[in-house]
Amino acid sequence: MRGGTVFGVGLGPGDPELMSVRADRLVRNARHVAFFRKAGRSGRARGIVDGMLRENAVEFAMEYPVTTEIPLSDPRYNQILSAFYSDCVAHLKALVAAGEDVVVLCEGDPFFYGSFMHLYTRLKDDVPVHVVPAITGMSAAWTATGAPVTWGDDILSVLMGTLPLAELTRGALDADALVVMKIGRNLPKIREALQAAGKMDRAWLVEYASMDGQTVMPLAEADDRVSPYFSIVIVHGQGRRP
Amino acid sequence: MRGGTVFGVGLGPGDPELMSVRADRLVRNARHVAFFRKAGRSGRARGIVDGMLRENAVEFAMEYPVTTEIPLSDPRYNQILSAFYSDCVAHLKALVAAGEDVVVLCEGDPFFYGSFMHLYTRLKDDVPVHVVPAITGMSAAWTATGAPVTWGDDILSVLMGTLPLAELTRGALDADALVVMKIGRNLPKIREALQAAGKMDRAWLVEYASMDGQTVMPLAEADDRVSPYFSIVIVHGQGRRP
Repeated sequence: MRGGTVFGVGLGPGDPELMSVRADRLVRNARHVAFFRKAGRSGRARGIVDGMLRENAVEFAMEYPVTTEIPLSDPRYNQILSAFYSDCVAHLKALVAAGEDVVVLCEGDPFFYGSFMHLYTRLKDDVPVHVVPAITGMSAAWTATGAPVTWGDDILSVLMGTLPLAELTRGALDADALVVMKIGRNLPKIREALQAAGKMDRAWLVEYASMDGQTVMPLAEADDRVSPYFSIVIVHGQGRRP
Repeated sequence: MRGGTVFGVGLGPGDPELMSVRADRLVRNARHVAFFRKAGRSGRARGIVDGMLRENAVEFAMEYPVTTEIPLSDPRYNQILSAFYSDCVAHLKALVAAGEDVVVLCEGDPFFYGSFMHLYTRLKDDVPVHVVPAITGMSAAWTATGAPVTWGDDILSVLMGTLPLAELTRGALDADALVVMKIGRNLPKIREALQAAGKMDRAWLVEYASMDGQTVMPLAEADDRVSPYFSIVIVHGQGRRP
């Protein structure tokens, strides 16, 4: 019997029309779909493809055993997540061994800070895996600002809001254009870093890029704002332009 | 009479199946398409949509008056390009005033080091412009390497190979993961910068990502290689992973 393939399919920033033609076809034809979600939630990736799945598609929801209950620094965090990923991979491998293709729904671009990477590294030596790149959330965010993010020889850096203040500040100083991801509770620290790097007055906060509720505002006006974890901060480059 | 709209449509990295569903529809329905190209060439953006245009689509090829004949540092370079962009914009505005929509074909993502930005800034205050983001060439490149580019809190920097050696080296030192674009004749300088930053042994050279002729090789094995300008160098991050 022919074995199946795992498809890691990037769904892009959230608007289903921003899925690639290939992703759209794979999702609509899938007999098996798998996706991560928080326990008790419907799942962000799954939400993007609402109304697109075959009626008889078999869904495999991979529910995170922890999110913020245990700090990242606790060794149990890695142990628990690692065991969780192994369980998910065992299920996917069994489907593939039975000759089934499985589409794993991935928010954004699978190889760019994506959860799928943890499955990919555990699958790739044993079963065929095909990865479909996608439009990143940051592309949707800078498009939403209505201004190009990089010009000429601008250096663009992508920083995680979860970084310590000193590293955020250094990263913000070193680049011309910036993307900051993983916002949420890190917003005050991100503001401090951008202030110290002299980039606060050029920073924009984008919430729900490409989705219902998309909001773009100067970061300087986001005082005391409770912004979602998946918001994105953009600082545009000022490089050469004729 | 209703005025038209200019659509800046990102086509992605080159594989037509990696165009977004929205881009695919806009391109297939367009009555007017515009695109940049080098004089005497058929045009890279135009090539991506070969076979997709309506039979009666009207094509407006915007041919660069200079590319490498005049150095960037010569003030005439900016003057000539600026006049060229103004001419293009005048043509697009005339179409829009006549009630026509125009699809401008853009390689990659329009707001990420794209040529369309030069039209956009000259159009946006006068006519409706709608930008469709796209999969970047760098996403296709890191997908082609078969390994995720960023993990955990990795800092990713995007550097242009046209930067001076010292800035390339500093940029390569400051980040965990790297993308270097605009390769071509800059390859020896890029190799020197990555060597100095201790990242040469983790660097990959990707040519024609997502297209016919896609090639992935360790940069260390690309001695004396003549690589296209649109090749991309990838250095993967090594961040936290359970």
